[in-house]
Amino acid sequence: MEVVNSSCPFCEIGRGVLDADLVAFRATNVFVVPTLKQRRLNSGQVLVCPVSHETSLYRLQIDLRNELFEVAAAVMAAAPRAFGAVGTTVLVNDNAPDQTLEHLHVHVIPRFAADNLVIPNVDGIPAPRSLRLELASKLRAAME
Amino acid sequence: MEVVNSSCPFCEIGRGVLDADLVAFRATNVFVVPTLKQRRLNSGQVLVCPVSHETSLYRLQIDLRNELFEVAAAVMAAAPRAFGAVGTTVLVNDNAPDQTLEHLHVHVIPRFAADNLVIPNVDGIPAPRSLRLELASKLRAAME
Repeated sequence: MEVVNSSCPFCEIGRGVLDADLVAFRATNVFVVPTLKQRRLNSGQVLVCPVSHETSLYRLQIDLRNELFEVAAAVMAAAPRAFGAVGTTVLVNDNAPDQTLEHLHVHVIPRFAADNLVIPNVDGIPAPRSLRLELASKLRAAME
Repeated sequence: MEVVNSSCPFCEIGRGVLDADLVAFRATNVFVVPTLKQRRLNSGQVLVCPVSHETSLYRLQIDLRNELFEVAAAVMAAAPRAFGAVGTTVLVNDNAPDQTLEHLHVHVIPRFAADNLVIPNVDGIPAPRSLRLELASKLRAAME
């Protein structure tokens, strides 16, 4: 397990010193926050991240990998209640050429009828903080 | 854990009665085969599937979920050796509206510099069986 990287914003969120109000769920070694960019037709996309500064899913210590997907599964289960989703799409980049965030993160994208999801997100407009807080609040309530 | 669904081709592959030569890797409860459709710039895409007819990642029994991602991680680790990939993208649909295959499957997509990966695959042309056999063979060798 890698130590905290002091220049990584996701390490700061994991440590609880940044965006604590955006954290929708926290397990022992994993936390969940809404993505900065929200698709119009897939509102509620979140990132499931290890607290420690990991950079590769396949190099992850087994217990942490299992905990990461335990939390991802709990988010998937809650997405219908939280966001009215019919299902989810889960995505992880591991050293992908178009990847922008180094800190390991599992995307959980709520799915809706006729959403025509395309990856990557071409909209690319950062969501207002108020929307992200609302999404975190809805997911937090659904995961209780 | 669900029983085998006799009309599901992935149950047939899992049981070993169909496409045994396309199976690149087999663990106790999980197997790996190349996708039918192969992207030109991301050759080597495979599906990591449970042998049993599961239809939801988040409803999966914990041990099987852990085994599924243990095998997915092994595929990710082997992708550079097998296909010359620089990394991978992992994707799972869970009741997604555009999903065509019910039997649970984890996509592992090899990534290459400037591949400009877009999901879903718009090419949509089934790969020749000879290419899928070659990809299975390369991955099998890299995972040994």
